[in-house]
Amino acid sequence: MEQAAQQIVMTPIGVVRSPFAETQQIPKGPGAQHMAEGTLELWSDLESGLTDIEGFSHLYVIWAFHRSAGYDLLAQPPTADRPHGVFTTRSPRRPNPIGLTVVELLGRAGSRLRVRGVDMLDGTPILDLKPYLSNVPPERIRRGWMPD
Amino acid sequence: MEQAAQQIVMTPIGVVRSPFAETQQIPKGPGAQHMAEGTLELWSDLESGLTDIEGFSHLYVIWAFHRSAGYDLLAQPPTADRPHGVFTTRSPRRPNPIGLTVVELLGRAGSRLRVRGVDMLDGTPILDLKPYLSNVPPERIRRGWMPD
Repeated sequence: MEQAAQQIVMTPIGVVRSPFAETQQIPKGPGAQHMAEGTLELWSDLESGLTDIEGFSHLYVIWAFHRSAGYDLLAQPPTADRPHGVFTTRSPRRPNPIGLTVVELLGRAGSRLRVRGVDMLDGTPILDLKPYLSNVPPERIRRGWMPD
Repeated sequence: MEQAAQQIVMTPIGVVRSPFAETQQIPKGPGAQHMAEGTLELWSDLESGLTDIEGFSHLYVIWAFHRSAGYDLLAQPPTADRPHGVFTTRSPRRPNPIGLTVVELLGRAGSRLRVRGVDMLDGTPILDLKPYLSNVPPERIRRGWMPD
């Protein structure tokens, strides 16, 4: 298949402040409880982009695995007994080093958002924030190789 | 605040095939039903990254608004009566032109995934795929300025 030649250059909109200085400190696996609190610090000149965000309970945070380099098409997460395709995992070693986390919005001070549910390292670059709007009905979700 | 100097360069992993040739054809707004079927065509050399994906019912697709240039910090979506912060909207004119869609996986043929729920233009570059794993309990979601 012809491959699109274009590259897309992203510039961080801010940085995550979290209690995690090293990846080993972050709870992992489908059963992990991500209740850690942290701050999403947007650059101050982007503050108006957060107008009316207080009314939202949850946000998608799209961020960059800034310490990851290179990728593997098969990945073996801690909870798996064999390798699986990287696109069925949250491995940081993926073709584009993009992370995605749903956080609960606790409060805002200017361009800083206090949130619960961070699973990113302190200093992680933030690429985008989006409103969390809807669910897939729980009974319709199947999670493949992942343990219940 | 000091701004991180680093830029992050993304390279598409594939392309969306959808029934939508123009943005005007895509249903918009919180009440929009995204039932359109389409295909996520990954480059064939990435096929093994899809190993075991058949067991997953839903996927996150992270993609690029490839026809968007520039951004506005305030955006007025079709369903809103006044502008809101861009990070509370799905506007394509955002600091990093990243789109996020949850799709239902219908089937796979090699490096092509047949899916339901596309709201992207035909030809949209795909940046990443991730498993859709969990929900926020519906009673805990608040959607800010968006109509119910």
